[in-house]
Amino acid sequence: MASLPRETPLSEAGEFAVVAALLERFRAEREDVLVGPGDDAAVLRIRRGHAVVSTDLVVENRHFRRDWCSAEDVGHRAAAQNLSDINAMGGRAHSLTLGLALPEDLTLGWVEDFATGFAAEAARVGAVVVGGDVTRASEIVAAVTVIGSVAKAPVLRSGALPGDVLALCGRQGWAAAGLAVLGRGFRSPRVLVDAYRRPEPPYDAGAAAAEAGAHALVDVSDGLLADATHVAVASGVRIDVATEALGVDEPLHAVGAALGADPQQFVLSGGDDHGLLAAFAADAELPEGWSVIGRVHERVAADEPWVTVDGAPHEGPTGWRHF
Amino acid sequence: MASLPRETPLSEAGEFAVVAALLERFRAEREDVLVGPGDDAAVLRIRRGHAVVSTDLVVENRHFRRDWCSAEDVGHRAAAQNLSDINAMGGRAHSLTLGLALPEDLTLGWVEDFATGFAAEAARVGAVVVGGDVTRASEIVAAVTVIGSVAKAPVLRSGALPGDVLALCGRQGWAAAGLAVLGRGFRSPRVLVDAYRRPEPPYDAGAAAAEAGAHALVDVSDGLLADATHVAVASGVRIDVATEALGVDEPLHAVGAALGADPQQFVLSGGDDHGLLAAFAADAELPEGWSVIGRVHERVAADEPWVTVDGAPHEGPTGWRHF
Repeated sequence: MASLPRETPLSEAGEFAVVAALLERFRAEREDVLVGPGDDAAVLRIRRGHAVVSTDLVVENRHFRRDWCSAEDVGHRAAAQNLSDINAMGGRAHSLTLGLALPEDLTLGWVEDFATGFAAEAARVGAVVVGGDVTRASEIVAAVTVIGSVAKAPVLRSGALPGDVLALCGRQGWAAAGLAVLGRGFRSPRVLVDAYRRPEPPYDAGAAAAEAGAHALVDVSDGLLADATHVAVASGVRIDVATEALGVDEPLHAVGAALGADPQQFVLSGGDDHGLLAAFAADAELPEGWSVIGRVHERVAADEPWVTVDGAPHEGPTGWRHF
Repeated sequence: MASLPRETPLSEAGEFAVVAALLERFRAEREDVLVGPGDDAAVLRIRRGHAVVSTDLVVENRHFRRDWCSAEDVGHRAAAQNLSDINAMGGRAHSLTLGLALPEDLTLGWVEDFATGFAAEAARVGAVVVGGDVTRASEIVAAVTVIGSVAKAPVLRSGALPGDVLALCGRQGWAAAGLAVLGRGFRSPRVLVDAYRRPEPPYDAGAAAAEAGAHALVDVSDGLLADATHVAVASGVRIDVATEALGVDEPLHAVGAALGADPQQFVLSGGDDHGLLAAFAADAELPEGWSVIGRVHERVAADEPWVTVDGAPHEGPTGWRHF
């Protein structure tokens, strides 16, 4: 069958062509995927340990704008955001399902590029797309479910102990700064805009942290302070973030100056980089790439804040609101 | 914390209240779910056999209308449609994830009722909700992923053999007739409208068919002839449906007469009942609830239709188009 032109609207291309475009790009195989896309369900062999499952939605004009990100970027981001959740359990992702709700005036080329980006990001961790669904809607919604496995016990949010150190792995604040730049109509510094368009989660860091005995683990997806709060609440501890240890990377200073914003705010409340935050015993040897950015304390009063910055409550946003 | 009034719009209720309303209704536990909703991912123990995974989207005004179905109905339907996919592999569902994209003017009560219906349908097979995501969008999208297991080998679409009988389990055409009734502005016959609002898939029939040695299995979700075509293409056979064996249930006659429609069309192209279609060896003993409705033939010419009705090509719709 000859391919349809990339500019063909989906209403004209039809479901068959959309599904074919996706399948062509999701052809990668794994020997533990016994049945891939095309039947009523996929069949996977889960060999040892436990299965880890997470679902996230990516909605147009809410999580991305078509004029700020290419379709390939959106594919990368949709996959990265979900793969990061398995990383945050100390696991390794092996398969993904993708539900796509698409407007009928979208072009076939957009879907092709999205699938290319999605498959490429999945390939970074060796994961493959095993199933999905395509339907029409008035705006683009990508619903991604990722399945992985943990070799031993998963590392939860609830295990941080007073006396632990708080450690971070991965860039922090770059994507938020890139988003701020795009929001003002700029396209540079390119390194930050790219960090927003294609986050680079430290995909090996979760399993390494688990191996190194991390007590608690979370990915920074809502914002550094917001996600630190998730750990603090789940663990019943207070977490103090030390700004001196955290630092502010050089490109953020330039953007802060250009936009009249406090660059540290990108670091404290940015979420889209999908780095990892962990609590380790104070005497643990941190794996490569991790650095201490704070400490875990006992809570001594019920009205104490869950998270403090340099010992004091933080004024200002801590992260992203979903509604 | 005092509950918010049911009529509170989500924009006012906020994410926390929405998530709390969902979690309250998804509290059911299973001992093979080690970590449920609330961490970065759920953790499941897959004990034996293989994992089976499927994803489906349910979109407002595409798959349901709020004035035709209560929120609880939509919850039932969204779960049933997905649970049926595991049934169609000969498996048993054990867990679900739910991604909900919701308009901000939707009421908290709608979400509560949706969750009640979703949880109740899942409970019919003993499955529980282990994770999900909530975000804002301009129309309701429910993205459901269901995970189950098959004890032995899964039953695929591709195993039908010439000489097999084609068998059906479950009501067929009732939901399509119910939808036709609603589309004309009526609310009765109630039994058909209810069949559309809350399908009753034969959840034990898939595993029973697998046990009885079914060669191929599919759920009727696109339409009887459309799904028979999926089996025929995957298996490289021709499937002939015998209308006399299929029959037309009594309530469909009444609706056909009232609407001036051919009631057999509901049976041949209806999909929303989520019954199962299987190919069995001609001498197999069919499990309870299954009846023979056709035969599987060798394809003798490349231009032969995949599916015939009473030996002849079918004129007219075979099922549902997604675009």
